Amino acid sequence: MLRVARRYRFSASHRLNSPLLSDEENTRIYGKCNNPYGHGHDYVLEVVLRGDVDPQTGLLTPLHRLDNYVHQTVLKDFDLKYMNEQIPVFRDVPPTTEFVAVEIERRLSEGWQAVFAGAPQLDAVRIYETRRNSVELNHE
Amino acid sequence: MLRVARRYRFSASHRLNSPLLSDEENTRIYGKCNNPYGHGHDYVLEVVLRGDVDPQTGLLTPLHRLDNYVHQTVLKDFDLKYMNEQIPVFRDVPPTTEFVAVEIERRLSEGWQAVFAGAPQLDAVRIYETRRNSVELNHE
Amino acid sequence: MLRVARRYRFSASHRLNSPLLSDEENTRIYGKCNNPYGHGHDYVLEVVLRGDVDPQTGLLTPLHRLDNYVHQTVLKDFDLKYMNEQIPVFRDVPPTTEFVAVEIERRLSEGWQAVFAGAPQLDAVRIYETRRNSVELNHE
Amino acid sequence: MLRVARRYRFSASHRLNSPLLSDEENTRIYGKCNNPYGHGHDYVLEVVLRGDVDPQTGLLTPLHRLDNYVHQTVLKDFDLKYMNEQIPVFRDVPPTTEFVAVEIERRLSEGWQAVFAGAPQLDAVRIYETRRNSVELNHE
Amino acid sequence: MLRVARRYRFSASHRLNSPLLSDEENTRIYGKCNNPYGHGHDYVLEVVLRGDVDPQTGLLTPLHRLDNYVHQTVLKDFDLKYMNEQIPVFRDVPPTTEFVAVEIERRLSEGWQAVFAGAPQLDAVRIYETRRNSVELNHE
Amino acid sequence: MLRVARRYRFSASHRLNSPLLSDEENTRIYGKCNNPYGHGHDYVLEVVLRGDVDPQTGLLTPLHRLDNYVHQTVLKDFDLKYMNEQIPVFRDVPPTTEFVAVEIERRLSEGWQAVFAGAPQLDAVRIYETRRNSVELNHE
Repeated sequence: MLRVARRYRFSASHRLNSPLLSDEENTRIYGKCNNPYGHGHDYVLEVVLRGDVDPQTGLLTPLHRLDNYVHQTVLKDFDLKYMNEQIPVFRDVPPTTEFVAVEIERRLSEGWQAVFAGAPQLDAVRIYETRRNSVELNHE
Repeated sequence: MLRVARRYRFSASHRLNSPLLSDEENTRIYGKCNNPYGHGHDYVLEVVLRGDVDPQTGLLTPLHRLDNYVHQTVLKDFDLKYMNEQIPVFRDVPPTTEFVAVEIERRLSEGWQAVFAGAPQLDAVRIYETRRNSVELNHE
Repeated sequence: MLRVARRYRFSASHRLNSPLLSDEENTRIYGKCNNPYGHGHDYVLEVVLRGDVDPQTGLLTPLHRLDNYVHQTVLKDFDLKYMNEQIPVFRDVPPTTEFVAVEIERRLSEGWQAVFAGAPQLDAVRIYETRRNSVELNHE
Repeated sequence: MLRVARRYRFSASHRLNSPLLSDEENTRIYGKCNNPYGHGHDYVLEVVLRGDVDPQTGLLTPLHRLDNYVHQTVLKDFDLKYMNEQIPVFRDVPPTTEFVAVEIERRLSEGWQAVFAGAPQLDAVRIYETRRNSVELNHE
Repeated sequence: MLRVARRYRFSASHRLNSPLLSDEENTRIYGKCNNPYGHGHDYVLEVVLRGDVDPQTGLLTPLHRLDNYVHQTVLKDFDLKYMNEQIPVFRDVPPTTEFVAVEIERRLSEGWQAVFAGAPQLDAVRIYETRRNSVELNHE
Repeated sequence: MLRVARRYRFSASHRLNSPLLSDEENTRIYGKCNNPYGHGHDYVLEVVLRGDVDPQTGLLTPLHRLDNYVHQTVLKDFDLKYMNEQIPVFRDVPPTTEFVAVEIERRLSEGWQAVFAGAPQLDAVRIYETRRNSVELNHE
């Protein structure tokens, strides 16, 4: 059993503000990230697969197949977008790195079986918001 | 004569759209960066000084003096901001990497003489918008 | 369950020399790192948390809370210090990357419950001594 | 129990072509990597060890011992080589990142016990083919 | 006057062997890079432009125009190729980083005027063969 | 005319304290870097050469010749050392990045003519003390 990790990049902007918090709490918790005009980052998305090597190809899966899938399900909706307004789920919950990871994992999981038919499996999603912060979500 | 370079980071968002261009031209020239909601980047700013080493300290200048100056003149206005709305000059011209460099060089030059009294001199400003794009502006 | 990783930097110097080894063994095992004057590195510390996302904030914990805790318990004692002399534990054991990780994990664990009250949990500590060497210690 | 990771680099070239696939399938699956003349990469190999800290030295193992072992079993055969022709196993199976990881793990495992006598253990092998692709193989 | 730098990547393989040197000299000068089967690298190409900002667009030139030009004149011939056999000039001279830079600068210069009409100008070409080696060629 | 840049690494420790300044000034100017026990960094040294390509070899100079020269004149004295005590010049002047660059340029210049006989020439020396600070000294 091996793991293959593949990195993608997207640039997006966001504002951290939770409808479940008061204005004062939003300011205290999110600091300058609560700025009403938003701000942006160059996100790195790492998609991790696990499975056995296909003896015919020596690959878990051809990477262009994964690239197409990630482009269709994630990148075309996230790259160069203002997440709060242009990605529906972030009208209700704030686009923190944690919730960005949850949403991307949900999108990748949804159609996975139809495209990859169980081999390889989605193992984990990692999001680097900056060089200092990252979130990892292991797929069950 | 030596050069000292010091790096700073700021996260900001922008939309590329020029009032001097038609909608169609804005779309053709800026592509997805013309997205009306904007998007963001983690910018790296490199400020380059030149001058002689002070024989008493072995430094061109103490870096905390430069750090304070760059923070006051640039970073506190740019970090975690939407440049099109929150930095006045970008209401008139688009916040391309080129114009971001011009504006930052203008801000650094303006009060330089009053703070550094000619030693060291401002040599250049470099902005990395992403790992692939950068702009360098040499101070005359 | 998610993991959040946050990176910190500190510069420190050390000398590798074990009181449990002869001079000859110290030289053979540590090589040039046994130099009596010591030498230094720019360490990267990665603190990994695990837990559930707080539905109100979309965060495992506000990062400024973690930053304050890591600053108080680790960085203020390690940054710009000579570890062998200025961090008490390293008077008895050599400040190898392994023992630096053990000491930092011990400091982070000690007051964790009082500050974070069980959410999130400390998951792991990683120390990169150089770009080539790192140590990971999983918190039980 | 700790993990220590150590990075090595080697430059090598390869051609992706499987004898178990038709010419058309080789082109479809490997794309430009099927180019009959081959092409190359700067690989990064990360060897991960796990074990307990030796209380006398503060180390899992002296790194020069690991360096010698990795040099003898892997690097001297892989660095600056055309893998398809100069590493025997790749005459039969294509030198994909997956199979490069399998071969390196096999070489490291083979003589491990004789050299390290069970402390530390080989934990995992990671190969980064480019900044975007990597493979991880956990040693059982 | 500003400079804009844009980075591209390509993977290629080569063998260093000069027809003007004896076998013994080839071995002595190029060392393991003289291996008859060749080996490869992940090259980074940085193309530097200089000129004035177009006041209408805030750009030296739209980057997609530069990207297309570099793809057509350089990348499509170099990426995933064995330079000694698949790029004609390297049948006569060895594909050292120096000669790779000279060849790329020649290709970029040739049609520059026809595409960019003098604004911006080609300023320099930089090639990073590995993280440790690079060559810079300033365009006159 | 081309430029070739080659990177080297060394780890060293230092204390910033000038005999020409009072204790109070030393504290004010150097801050925590005035810590009497010193601290350390992983320095990157970039040596830049300029000259014409040798038509026989396609190189400015074989890099192993430069590597040997830099090792003999700089690295063997700086790597894993406490500069204040173990490099004579730093008993008199503080080992700031500026003075480290001056000393390294002096060492490289001294025997250059005897080894390289005018081709290539030493063009510049760059020292990166951390990822944020660097000094460049152009050789006249």
